[in-house]
Amino acid sequence: MSGTSSTDTLNRRRFLSGLAGAGAALSSLPAKAESAKPDPAITEVQDWNRYLGDGVQKTPYGMPSKFEKNVVRRDVSWLTASPESSVNFTPLHELDGIITPSGLCFERHHSGVAEINPADHRLMINGLVDKPLVFTMDDLKRMPRVNKIHFLECAANSGMEWRGAQLNGCQFTHGMVHNVMYTGVTLKTVLDEAGIKPNAKWLMLEGADAAGMNRSLPIDKALDDCMIAFGMNGEALRPEQGYPLRAVIPGWEGNLWVKWLRRIEVGDQPWQTREETSKYTDLLADGRSRKHTFVMDAKSIVTNPSPQAPLKYKGRNVLSGFAWSGRGTVKRVDVSMDGGRNWQTARIDGPVFDKSLVRFYVDFDWNGHEMMIQSRAMDSTGYVQPSKDELRKVRGVNSIYHNNGIQTWLVRSSGETENVEIG
Amino acid sequence: MSGTSSTDTLNRRRFLSGLAGAGAALSSLPAKAESAKPDPAITEVQDWNRYLGDGVQKTPYGMPSKFEKNVVRRDVSWLTASPESSVNFTPLHELDGIITPSGLCFERHHSGVAEINPADHRLMINGLVDKPLVFTMDDLKRMPRVNKIHFLECAANSGMEWRGAQLNGCQFTHGMVHNVMYTGVTLKTVLDEAGIKPNAKWLMLEGADAAGMNRSLPIDKALDDCMIAFGMNGEALRPEQGYPLRAVIPGWEGNLWVKWLRRIEVGDQPWQTREETSKYTDLLADGRSRKHTFVMDAKSIVTNPSPQAPLKYKGRNVLSGFAWSGRGTVKRVDVSMDGGRNWQTARIDGPVFDKSLVRFYVDFDWNGHEMMIQSRAMDSTGYVQPSKDELRKVRGVNSIYHNNGIQTWLVRSSGETENVEIG
Repeated sequence: MSGTSSTDTLNRRRFLSGLAGAGAALSSLPAKAESAKPDPAITEVQDWNRYLGDGVQKTPYGMPSKFEKNVVRRDVSWLTASPESSVNFTPLHELDGIITPSGLCFERHHSGVAEINPADHRLMINGLVDKPLVFTMDDLKRMPRVNKIHFLECAANSGMEWRGAQLNGCQFTHGMVHNVMYTGVTLKTVLDEAGIKPNAKWLMLEGADAAGMNRSLPIDKALDDCMIAFGMNGEALRPEQGYPLRAVIPGWEGNLWVKWLRRIEVGDQPWQTREETSKYTDLLADGRSRKHTFVMDAKSIVTNPSPQAPLKYKGRNVLSGFAWSGRGTVKRVDVSMDGGRNWQTARIDGPVFDKSLVRFYVDFDWNGHEMMIQSRAMDSTGYVQPSKDELRKVRGVNSIYHNNGIQTWLVRSSGETENVEIG
Repeated sequence: MSGTSSTDTLNRRRFLSGLAGAGAALSSLPAKAESAKPDPAITEVQDWNRYLGDGVQKTPYGMPSKFEKNVVRRDVSWLTASPESSVNFTPLHELDGIITPSGLCFERHHSGVAEINPADHRLMINGLVDKPLVFTMDDLKRMPRVNKIHFLECAANSGMEWRGAQLNGCQFTHGMVHNVMYTGVTLKTVLDEAGIKPNAKWLMLEGADAAGMNRSLPIDKALDDCMIAFGMNGEALRPEQGYPLRAVIPGWEGNLWVKWLRRIEVGDQPWQTREETSKYTDLLADGRSRKHTFVMDAKSIVTNPSPQAPLKYKGRNVLSGFAWSGRGTVKRVDVSMDGGRNWQTARIDGPVFDKSLVRFYVDFDWNGHEMMIQSRAMDSTGYVQPSKDELRKVRGVNSIYHNNGIQTWLVRSSGETENVEIG
């Protein structure tokens, strides 16, 4: 499985004058899935109405229908050097609601998936503490638990798009995000148990994978809303999400959410690990760098229609997407169908949580005209998601991380949808 | 895989005087998972810290860790005539938070799992309507969508317990319940499209499985809060949960939530189907029957400790469980550790939704004494979950359905836990 590559330059698909094809001939798309002939799905008895299906022992742990076999994480083989130090992407265009199924949450590893026996896993807390501690998984599960729904977004999500429309599908442009209900213990609970010394300012979180992935975390954030989680979406963490233990750093870049968490060292300054110097730092146009850019700002994406999910019918349609903010809740999402000239407020449906995805919809009638679809999130701080050009003015085009610019999909009159740039 | 059978009579495990073993000798359970010897999990480098793990193409659709292989639905082979007309049970004692993973939601079928190609699936609305309609799945997905989290409980959940402690584990006593975020269209939306005639009072919902499972539903409920859902927990419905389309009847017994939904007929009286005459009707002691007992009343269960999840340590422990009500939200859960003499209010953690499970915890220290653990839910109507004996006084012991009585677990000083009866 490989994604769609592209050699598009910054301007190739750039449309400076809004709608390119407004007023073009109507396509031949049907308004409804029906024909003049009798529908054999009604007139003929189907096999599933004639024969017994599988019994209850067949799937002790259930799986999706075989008709959903294309709903999978996909990787982009040319993007990384090896499959063990690589990434795959959540199929956002196939999802709905706000929960990402655990089996479809994107993966990002530096040394592949550590396969850990929880009986042999330990979490150590050392450094500037009154009493260094080692916890077994059983120890942690005997401490007071909390449950929270939060998004996790990789700082590099949409990173390829800094230089213009690159990847043809929201799975690839925006698929390094997921939204999960976590169960675990607050980081404050375990730190209080060890006792933090007065000069403690930073933590170092370290993974038990072969990479020994580690990052520095300011202690104020750790004590505010962070967790160490052993559960996701009701069951144990999945191996590729850090089983048996991961950090949950709400609203902050995914790289900080250390998986297979084995050690927390308490110190008075950041550790300057590879992941915060060589990586997760952005070179600006003037030669300076942005560093410790932890927060994921407000962002949104229309998932349907999108290049992997074209429109199939004229008439009644549902536009769907989701929005999130690392600074609080999403207050409003606006959608444009004409490349940003006119905006309407989308309907947010389902629960709205702090630092969580929200689902939005626009129910609309499509006459077959070309559309330039965009969405724009506003969060509880009043922050409004910027255009990509607004971001580029401030940060240049060397950046990889923290692209939360507005995405544009061009819907052709055939219903086919493309990733384009209009600034 | 088979559950634990039992020949216990109503009184065999009945304890009339509260705690049977209070003051018994302390067990030799450790207070913490540690020993005097150096911990090899710390002093020896583990394989997962030495070698590359699996790369990102390995599992396009992810699965749980191999160390979680016992976290599965389990059936009870002696309970039903065939695996196609049978049931399996959600492993409640292995879950946390409020979302039931889709692969672990219990199954109940009359003719096995219908394996439906969604392209060939249709939903028909006929009967007392202005305009009979047939919808494809695409048609339904172009109508305005909603997302709701609701529990589904089989009316027969805990049914075996009417006659005393029968099954040794909450997976078997209470495992016919799950809690899912659904995505779909309101039933009102599709009924409005067809136009309901003034004399319409009931609907008949019919499945596309070989059983053609069908039930009658009052139209007021249908127009109030019911859905037809195509999504669960973010992705398509699972085959065993009705893929591609099921009814969602919030707070009402699971049998009404018709799976593989293919037809809705509108009428002026109930259809008197097998599922509402021969089944889902309870014979009272005086020879009369309770019928159309749709609502699932407030109920709760302690999942940890429980017979499948004994206590392993003295000292700090977490008691965990969940509660639900078909009449609104859960307002409070009380827990007793001495068979109902003394009660404390549990800590509800995580989101509280209408007609949804809530998760509760009691953080406690255990000195190794025997305990009789019970939980008792109160809902937003003021209703309090009754004892089993209170239910039996009203409904006798012929009943199968709607047992929402308080459950009792006896925790031995060894930590082993049993299903017992104290009235």
